[in-house]
Amino acid sequence: MNFFMPARLYTGEHCFEKHGDILQGLGRKCTVITGRHAAKESGALKEVSETLASRNTDYSIFDGISQNPTVASCMEAGTSARAFGAEFLIGIGGGSALDAAKAAAVFAANPRLKEDGFYRKEWENPPLPIVLVGTTAGTGSEVTKVSVLTDSKGRKHSIHDDRLYAYASFGDSRYTMSLSLPITLTTGVDVLAHCTESYFSRKADSLSRSFAIQGICLLYEPLSAAAEGKPLSPQQREQLYEASIFGGLAINTTGTCFPHNVGYYLTENYGIPHGFASAAFLPDFLKLVVKDDRDYADSFFREIGFGEDAILSLTGKCLPKNSIAMTEAEILTALPRWENNGSVQNTRSAVTTEMIRKILIQKYQKS
Amino acid sequence: MNFFMPARLYTGEHCFEKHGDILQGLGRKCTVITGRHAAKESGALKEVSETLASRNTDYSIFDGISQNPTVASCMEAGTSARAFGAEFLIGIGGGSALDAAKAAAVFAANPRLKEDGFYRKEWENPPLPIVLVGTTAGTGSEVTKVSVLTDSKGRKHSIHDDRLYAYASFGDSRYTMSLSLPITLTTGVDVLAHCTESYFSRKADSLSRSFAIQGICLLYEPLSAAAEGKPLSPQQREQLYEASIFGGLAINTTGTCFPHNVGYYLTENYGIPHGFASAAFLPDFLKLVVKDDRDYADSFFREIGFGEDAILSLTGKCLPKNSIAMTEAEILTALPRWENNGSVQNTRSAVTTEMIRKILIQKYQKS
Repeated sequence: MNFFMPARLYTGEHCFEKHGDILQGLGRKCTVITGRHAAKESGALKEVSETLASRNTDYSIFDGISQNPTVASCMEAGTSARAFGAEFLIGIGGGSALDAAKAAAVFAANPRLKEDGFYRKEWENPPLPIVLVGTTAGTGSEVTKVSVLTDSKGRKHSIHDDRLYAYASFGDSRYTMSLSLPITLTTGVDVLAHCTESYFSRKADSLSRSFAIQGICLLYEPLSAAAEGKPLSPQQREQLYEASIFGGLAINTTGTCFPHNVGYYLTENYGIPHGFASAAFLPDFLKLVVKDDRDYADSFFREIGFGEDAILSLTGKCLPKNSIAMTEAEILTALPRWENNGSVQNTRSAVTTEMIRKILIQKYQKS
Repeated sequence: MNFFMPARLYTGEHCFEKHGDILQGLGRKCTVITGRHAAKESGALKEVSETLASRNTDYSIFDGISQNPTVASCMEAGTSARAFGAEFLIGIGGGSALDAAKAAAVFAANPRLKEDGFYRKEWENPPLPIVLVGTTAGTGSEVTKVSVLTDSKGRKHSIHDDRLYAYASFGDSRYTMSLSLPITLTTGVDVLAHCTESYFSRKADSLSRSFAIQGICLLYEPLSAAAEGKPLSPQQREQLYEASIFGGLAINTTGTCFPHNVGYYLTENYGIPHGFASAAFLPDFLKLVVKDDRDYADSFFREIGFGEDAILSLTGKCLPKNSIAMTEAEILTALPRWENNGSVQNTRSAVTTEMIRKILIQKYQKS
């Protein structure tokens, strides 16, 4: 059992306002990093602004973060924060904005840092303190040391570093109340993927497994309702949010497995939203791990209280219709990226690129 | 959901040796705080010493911590560490040594601090960094910000402060292999009390509840075996250790309830070991919370997978025969300590001193 997660985590209604005092020690000036819409539409930006104003903290806003944020946009956000004289950063949004805020905090504190130096972690100074305010229930970035960014060639990278932990994270599920059905589903199945992949990771231990189980137990009912197109109650939104935190805690110990990594390829090349892209491979993943270690899988199903079929059916109801068609040549060209890949090898079962080839051909090859 | 636990936690065989490198940043000199026997007999002191020596870290040993450690002994330990020039402290032992190491770290960094100033947290300087190596599976001190100490009048106090978190904690269950049956039982029922009290605390949330449940699930089988006098296997010892960590994580969010606090009285006045003293009130506690909120209690029993009777029977098998006889006058004299007491009021059900009076009379009044 290994555990380290030094962020202060608060969830629940008005948690930012209630616990805003803990930001006092971080300084009097901060830059808020967000995307174009979610922070405003959720109401989070307004409430965060009011809380900062009431505590005499000046802030600037950088709202140029888009889906699958690039390292370049994080560098720009960091430069903007530095120009403002920010002493700490607040990321508001879904995984994209939160992950971008983590990287922006590195760039803000390291004016000469370039993209390569960022990946090599040649960070001369520690990042500015990071505060995260989530507006979707999916990423779990609130409690991880991970930032997933897209490089200048369009390739997604997952950067892990203890210096990327938030100082404090806030999860007020009121901000998720008005999320569209597709966003609710793609972020929800991302949580399902986090928990399932984590449970079957080689690095799983009793603590990470209990996070994974609890995440799925909280998730199942509200995600099923969303998949059936039912509007979610505040309590169901709260459950989804808490599930996303459990998912984050689980993968923070174990990392993800091949569904997430192969999913990156669908996002990069076919624009499939992150959660849908990962969950696309959940059925293949489950089939593999169940076949390879029936006893272990049985503990999983016993603990979550339902079987493989229920997970597959839920995943199927959440995922949109497949819109991808690949040529065999495309698949063969992509394969080398999964050789010696950490996430692929993280699966308890042995996973080869040949197996990934078969999965991709079976799912996506043009007939 | 609120969570904060910034310690680096490692469990498993040889975890101190494996992860000893993370201590490098803490300095070249440390003082080891222990009791007279456990650190030596468990083998922990030898292995910690070897790991320190192999990394060129000098150490001194202060082995004057006894059961229910006094603030005075922590002050003495702190003075000894300061005299040695220690840059960090390592506590090795059960709850007593670990809690004492936390307080010694405060005194080592604050030469002028007196007992009253310690309670009032008039700590001018932050404590020295604290490293904890557990040798019993009970306290959970490895992951809490709590130090339970006895004052100069013989009264136990529970001191909570974010500065008391360990920098790193190590739980190698090999050190618990040779624990006597009574120590295995009293530390084991302490975990049972931690998890049960935490679940029924007013401050419980989905995260603390999942810790509590997981703790009991891990604990039940090995503790039952120990209660029947069976020698425990390494795997059972590991399970007990992990259960103690889950218990610590649970109470770190919620605190304990009246069994722990009323138990202090049995320890102070009748010398009952801490775990037995707390667990003595578990049956009364369960009876009360089950009566007051049957639905909530039912979720608890459903999640742990067995009922009230099983817990009561396990507790009964672990506890030694009652050796206490109180007069009514003694009981009446003690009662005011539980008026407006935080731990007593922490119970989901309303608990009055009148209820505590009845419990004490029924259990202990001389006939």
